Amino acid sequence: MIFTDLAIADLRFPTSLSLDGSDAMNPDPDYSAAYVVIRTDAEDGHEGHGFAFTIGRGNDVQAAAIASLRPYVVGRPVAAVLADLGGLWRDLVHDSQLRWLGPEKGVMHMAIAAVVNALWDLRAKREGLPLWQLLSRLSPEELVDLVDFRYLSDALTREDALDILRAARPGRAGREEHLLREGFPAYTTSPGWLGYDDDKLRRLCKEAVADGFGQIKLKVGADLADDVRRMTIARQICGPDYRIAVDANQRWDVPTAISWMRELAAFDPYWVEEPTSPDDVVGHATIARELAPIRVATGEHIANRVVFKQLLQLDAVSYVQIDATRVAGVNENLAILLLAAKFGVPVCPHAGGVGLCELVQHLSMFDYVAVAGDMRDRVIEYVDHLHEHFVDPVVIRRGRYVAPTAPGFSATIHPRTLSEYAYPDGPVWSSTASKQVAHAPQPRRAKEGTNHG
Amino acid sequence: MIFTDLAIADLRFPTSLSLDGSDAMNPDPDYSAAYVVIRTDAEDGHEGHGFAFTIGRGNDVQAAAIASLRPYVVGRPVAAVLADLGGLWRDLVHDSQLRWLGPEKGVMHMAIAAVVNALWDLRAKREGLPLWQLLSRLSPEELVDLVDFRYLSDALTREDALDILRAARPGRAGREEHLLREGFPAYTTSPGWLGYDDDKLRRLCKEAVADGFGQIKLKVGADLADDVRRMTIARQICGPDYRIAVDANQRWDVPTAISWMRELAAFDPYWVEEPTSPDDVVGHATIARELAPIRVATGEHIANRVVFKQLLQLDAVSYVQIDATRVAGVNENLAILLLAAKFGVPVCPHAGGVGLCELVQHLSMFDYVAVAGDMRDRVIEYVDHLHEHFVDPVVIRRGRYVAPTAPGFSATIHPRTLSEYAYPDGPVWSSTASKQVAHAPQPRRAKEGTNHG
Repeated sequence: MIFTDLAIADLRFPTSLSLDGSDAMNPDPDYSAAYVVIRTDAEDGHEGHGFAFTIGRGNDVQAAAIASLRPYVVGRPVAAVLADLGGLWRDLVHDSQLRWLGPEKGVMHMAIAAVVNALWDLRAKREGLPLWQLLSRLSPEELVDLVDFRYLSDALTREDALDILRAARPGRAGREEHLLREGFPAYTTSPGWLGYDDDKLRRLCKEAVADGFGQIKLKVGADLADDVRRMTIARQICGPDYRIAVDANQRWDVPTAISWMRELAAFDPYWVEEPTSPDDVVGHATIARELAPIRVATGEHIANRVVFKQLLQLDAVSYVQIDATRVAGVNENLAILLLAAKFGVPVCPHAGGVGLCELVQHLSMFDYVAVAGDMRDRVIEYVDHLHEHFVDPVVIRRGRYVAPTAPGFSATIHPRTLSEYAYPDGPVWSSTASKQVAHAPQPRRAKEGTNHG
Repeated sequence: MIFTDLAIADLRFPTSLSLDGSDAMNPDPDYSAAYVVIRTDAEDGHEGHGFAFTIGRGNDVQAAAIASLRPYVVGRPVAAVLADLGGLWRDLVHDSQLRWLGPEKGVMHMAIAAVVNALWDLRAKREGLPLWQLLSRLSPEELVDLVDFRYLSDALTREDALDILRAARPGRAGREEHLLREGFPAYTTSPGWLGYDDDKLRRLCKEAVADGFGQIKLKVGADLADDVRRMTIARQICGPDYRIAVDANQRWDVPTAISWMRELAAFDPYWVEEPTSPDDVVGHATIARELAPIRVATGEHIANRVVFKQLLQLDAVSYVQIDATRVAGVNENLAILLLAAKFGVPVCPHAGGVGLCELVQHLSMFDYVAVAGDMRDRVIEYVDHLHEHFVDPVVIRRGRYVAPTAPGFSATIHPRTLSEYAYPDGPVWSSTASKQVAHAPQPRRAKEGTNHG
């Protein structure tokens, strides 16, 4: 049995029309997926689905990057590749020529995420388990074989990782049951987009509390007076003890992050997310030191495990926000879960976009069962967009993710969506209005310093 | 007058056939360029040429990324864009949707380098000056307008930059003359590729000394016994006081870098280059502290100015090795030159590949005339490959770069090369042998731990 095909689709959703997803750096995203379907000649007919998430323009570049990885998959033996996904990961990440295009960052690294995640989806479908459960039942030795410890050994060795995984082994079965019964805590970003007016903010805050979420998140960073007004509203609606995180989406320089957050400190923000450039580990450490006890969170734009390692080494973050398709897929996220466990920092995944909630729930649930072994102070982001396009969409009950039970990585998109939202020729995009949204580059300078909402 | 065309070529040179460029991480590069030609409807007929350098597979992905930037150039007014290249840089780097694909790193950032550098080439041709001279004659105010200080202000403000540039202003004319008379010091990496045998190493070391180079560089990191043997030969040939740098091309973890270099310390290496992951600023700081007085150099894979900022803040590097096409072109390299000047660290550019020598000479010469104002302890890498493809190739005389005088950025490749080396349909690639070189992915695991040479 061999892999016979790695098909790629450029899917885009015209989310910019409603300003869903609008924040201080991303005024008008069109949530998109460079989507992968891997097929085999096996009789079971299972396909592996995966994707890289982008926000519109450039999704075709992302698709081209995925195409460059085809020779690593098509024609190779299914069983051997799926049995050694750590080996495949190394082959992809360390291709000596493709590596130059990162290394281990940006478009090429996200392309590896799409392929690696699709292979995990296939493996989980073949084994008849949801991914979180498949991973949770691997032995510590099988798990560490999935991790490339290159560049990590000053902070985390293979032996450290084995110790962490072995320590978590005894309680696995009980935690699996607990998850199946109770689910995993979620927080919601839906009220907080900058593009929403105060009435909508007020209404959505009320709904969040009523729906049982223990935490919301507001976008900040475009205009301080707006932020103060919106935090006042949110605090008023949600009450003094409710967890309200804020997210600056990289808008600030280090000194601005510190002074701006001091103005918002009176509203008791639960964390400040992405206060500055995701590449600035030293800057995050400075901000964390200056703003304590306000906690710093980041991760959705952190390029790879080496940068996460440094954020932990420098005590720069209180929460690690893994993303399912920014780093090179499940294997690299396993490395990051292990790093976070070594440093005792909770992992609270980034989600939203299209399909990110579907994917990260598996990683957090696996973390709870087999790595950190703990659910306290952990929460998965939830945004209520675009789930209807998924065959096995996330289910939220009383503010918690219900543990998925269908085999796979929950990545599969309905065939109808694959044709309707195909860019640029699907019916959704052939209308002139939608095309205009996606085609026009946005010269940014005229808008600088203004509230993008 | 408007920009009428932004044409892109996928050029690849089958350098893997001779193992030119082989090192511990790049056993068989095919030096490549995702090449850009920008045309206008002006009567002068000038074109802007630029490129992103890659090492083979994925050069098509790089080309696709450049294509995504076309709407920012084609159709826009030539004079206004060229008069405000700082503005264009911000438009490109901060496109809110494309930014997601980095941000500011990897394929998309290198695509911006190609476009920005091509526009600088065009501007210099139109003004009838080599780029280094054009830049050297801009006022401090014009120069700082080219720089985006976002994410830098905790280390370098616009006012800091103005102070640096104003301080260097008085001696500009004298330094221009000095450069035209004496050129700029070079060092050569030609003897040091891992793929060369000891006899070739010995012969090339002799030639380097005879040709007047004051420094060579050897690739290390694949096998310690080999490194010791090759350093012994080089030290023997070049003499006890000669500068011999070593380059590990990111091969090591932090602890390995320290222990391995302690074994090579007896050979008095001038610097150790790329000891570990380019993303690991904390690791570089540890290595620098542990290995002092051996100096640490890095930069050719540093994604952007924010990472350079941190390397300087943490005292992690003694030499800043800018690359012409890794960060987003001339503008971002100006930011890095200013950062280096602020911290008093010499800039010694990475070069080699295809066309990198041609480009970086302009940046070092501008640095000498108008930024650092100093040539001491500064040296530009030189590798004697592929210069014959350039209309205005670098000239090396007695181990120094001769200052170029032809208008432009020296980026223009001969039309004949553009057709012969076009991939995959140019005559050089239509032979079966060459095609095999470039198409085969290199599963890497079998080779791990072996000497790639």
